[in-house]
Amino acid sequence: MTSSSSASPQSLLAPAASPAAPQWPAGQWSQGVHDAMAEISRGVDELLVAAEMAQKLADSERTGQPLRIKLGLDPTAPDLHLGHTVVLNKLRALQNLGHQVIFLIGDFTALIGDPTGRNTTRPPLTPEEISANAKTYFQQASLVLDASRTEIRRNSEWCEGLGARGMIRLAAQATVARMLERDDFTKRYKAGTPISVHEFLYPLLQGHDSVALRADLELGGTDQKFNLLMGRELQRDAGQSPQCVLTMPLLEGLDGIEKMSKSKGNYVGIAEAPDEMFGKLMSISDTLMWKYFTLLSFRPLAELASLQQQAAEGRNPRDIKVELAQEIVTRFHSRAAAEQALANFEARFKQGEVPADLPLVQVGAGPLSVVAVLKQAGLVPSTSEAGRNIDQGGVRIDGQKVADRGLQLSAGEYVIQVGKRRFAKVVIA
Amino acid sequence: MTSSSSASPQSLLAPAASPAAPQWPAGQWSQGVHDAMAEISRGVDELLVAAEMAQKLADSERTGQPLRIKLGLDPTAPDLHLGHTVVLNKLRALQNLGHQVIFLIGDFTALIGDPTGRNTTRPPLTPEEISANAKTYFQQASLVLDASRTEIRRNSEWCEGLGARGMIRLAAQATVARMLERDDFTKRYKAGTPISVHEFLYPLLQGHDSVALRADLELGGTDQKFNLLMGRELQRDAGQSPQCVLTMPLLEGLDGIEKMSKSKGNYVGIAEAPDEMFGKLMSISDTLMWKYFTLLSFRPLAELASLQQQAAEGRNPRDIKVELAQEIVTRFHSRAAAEQALANFEARFKQGEVPADLPLVQVGAGPLSVVAVLKQAGLVPSTSEAGRNIDQGGVRIDGQKVADRGLQLSAGEYVIQVGKRRFAKVVIA
Repeated sequence: MTSSSSASPQSLLAPAASPAAPQWPAGQWSQGVHDAMAEISRGVDELLVAAEMAQKLADSERTGQPLRIKLGLDPTAPDLHLGHTVVLNKLRALQNLGHQVIFLIGDFTALIGDPTGRNTTRPPLTPEEISANAKTYFQQASLVLDASRTEIRRNSEWCEGLGARGMIRLAAQATVARMLERDDFTKRYKAGTPISVHEFLYPLLQGHDSVALRADLELGGTDQKFNLLMGRELQRDAGQSPQCVLTMPLLEGLDGIEKMSKSKGNYVGIAEAPDEMFGKLMSISDTLMWKYFTLLSFRPLAELASLQQQAAEGRNPRDIKVELAQEIVTRFHSRAAAEQALANFEARFKQGEVPADLPLVQVGAGPLSVVAVLKQAGLVPSTSEAGRNIDQGGVRIDGQKVADRGLQLSAGEYVIQVGKRRFAKVVIA
Repeated sequence: MTSSSSASPQSLLAPAASPAAPQWPAGQWSQGVHDAMAEISRGVDELLVAAEMAQKLADSERTGQPLRIKLGLDPTAPDLHLGHTVVLNKLRALQNLGHQVIFLIGDFTALIGDPTGRNTTRPPLTPEEISANAKTYFQQASLVLDASRTEIRRNSEWCEGLGARGMIRLAAQATVARMLERDDFTKRYKAGTPISVHEFLYPLLQGHDSVALRADLELGGTDQKFNLLMGRELQRDAGQSPQCVLTMPLLEGLDGIEKMSKSKGNYVGIAEAPDEMFGKLMSISDTLMWKYFTLLSFRPLAELASLQQQAAEGRNPRDIKVELAQEIVTRFHSRAAAEQALANFEARFKQGEVPADLPLVQVGAGPLSVVAVLKQAGLVPSTSEAGRNIDQGGVRIDGQKVADRGLQLSAGEYVIQVGKRRFAKVVIA
């Protein structure tokens, strides 16, 4: 075995999403550690500290002791969409490597709610609500995770016992200046937006959770980095080996621009019907497809590299997208449902001779003139060009030829065709 | 009764110490309230809010319900000096007006100590140490206070019960920006000196104490103003009528310059022997004497005004100072001891023909040349003038003529005389 094998996994990582693949010292790790690091690094935003992570993996390999991987959760009851599964996928990859996942429910602070009373959307939850929410969450998450390697804990187990004195001792472990380094605190302090003193206690409690759990690695979104690092500091203070910290990027929605969210309408819910899920995934751009492969597919890195090679050699990206859509539908429904969704999709679009991988385009709020819609959807380079196409009878909306340049379109979804080849599915807000 | 009677108490207040006598709306209060306000305002640094204080006094007069006056104490065991008694004197005045004093021992935080471990001079105290220290304190304070109107409480009574959740709720009641307004926090934050997050919790706990005690008035030194005001805010949040806040100035030491403190050597300990106490008080300047009358004497304001009148009409200030020194010695020893101290004092100084009211002057660290000492003590305008006086045989130290300009004086106390009239008691550090 030479160090050349250690270079290759990194070069395959995260084709589009990772701004800088984590580096770890080459040559001193086993092949197993190298492979694990490649899998762990796939698509990450940041892994701190890569060399420590490799050491933890090496120790785990030597002792047979699985690593303890923490994910903190607010006990809310979300309808999960694919954006939420990015972190779950990473946890599953870690489970596949033999490690132990700990779902930590932040019930302690949820039982308090927002003590300022200013945030009426965050009233205290009852223990019953917390249990019900956690159950809803795990039912959904178990479609991704291996339940046998998932431990569920609640931080009230150790936070209640802190008492007022423990809380003061905890608060002594960080400085005000350190807290004000957190991005949102910095901004709010500079802008004169009030920060309640108790908000400084939450990152400390989150760090204390890592001490209580003796976590080896904590995962979170990029916006959680500060809080995750607090765990490292408190573990070090407590004489523990500090956890590594892994942040995952936010998944872009179907539009490829904004982060996936229910309120933006650019999401794929994990409970959506197979046809809906399949069709939505087929609507994404070719560029976004590679990001989704990195963050949502469980196919090995070598296979992704091979698919990219095929695309470079001229394979139709649509066919590669079908593979992604089928993998996702299979995960949340079944293989049979995925096959049927593909068949339905092809039948539907072959009839209308509308391309199957129609890009979905969001434009401004209706009513909008057809000329403006064509321009905003990028189907024509200018409004005068849009007018010319309409005059020549070259524009169709949902199959109907448009005769009137002055036509107004209200909110809704339209399949718009310009000439023979230009199609788009346009959503008017 | 007219409003003219309400103006007179204010004009008599605090002859020298009060930078701005508190104002309260004239005319709407009873004579009793006016008199009480005059007594309460005597010598204060600030009284917030005077109109609220007058209202509380009026309510108390109407209902017969005494006001609850809080003084928070760290459970350390100081040797009290006169500087410490300034606040105690004010409490005694309030007791004389019929109100209830609450000594609050801050045992809760003392049991924690400094949780950062950085401050080795503040280790956690045991409950036994706290009890012993409190006992020592009260033994001394009871020479000033009326024990029958003094209640002793410990804040662990209610702080322990806050628990971790109560601590978070408490922390939610103030903002980070508000905390950083506190003078020392502002300075430390700007200077980059670390402030631990737990330090923000202490003012909140102090404020919570006022809520638990339903305090009507809290006393403290000027440096406590921020913490005292926190009590007002938390009481308001808790739906209570906010406490008034009364800060007392720091007492200058015998030198009339620095605040009285043991480490500066410019203090009068309340356990000092009558002769020592008497002699030290006789050494203060005439200006300082009036401040001491305001802050240390229990003589009514009208009597102080009369003494000032006598001084203006040519009565020897020394004789007025004797009245102050005798009052203080009587308080901490007895009337007989005060008489004896006066007799001893007069006998001692009449023999040596040294003035009785010798100013005490602190100069730099010894050994110092006699020339430098004369200059530093302000007995001569320049070192050359000092040399000239020595050469002419006009300088005496402890009665002995100085012949040598090069004489070195080591640390100690000396009575130095220049010419016939200039005397000083000089302390070389």
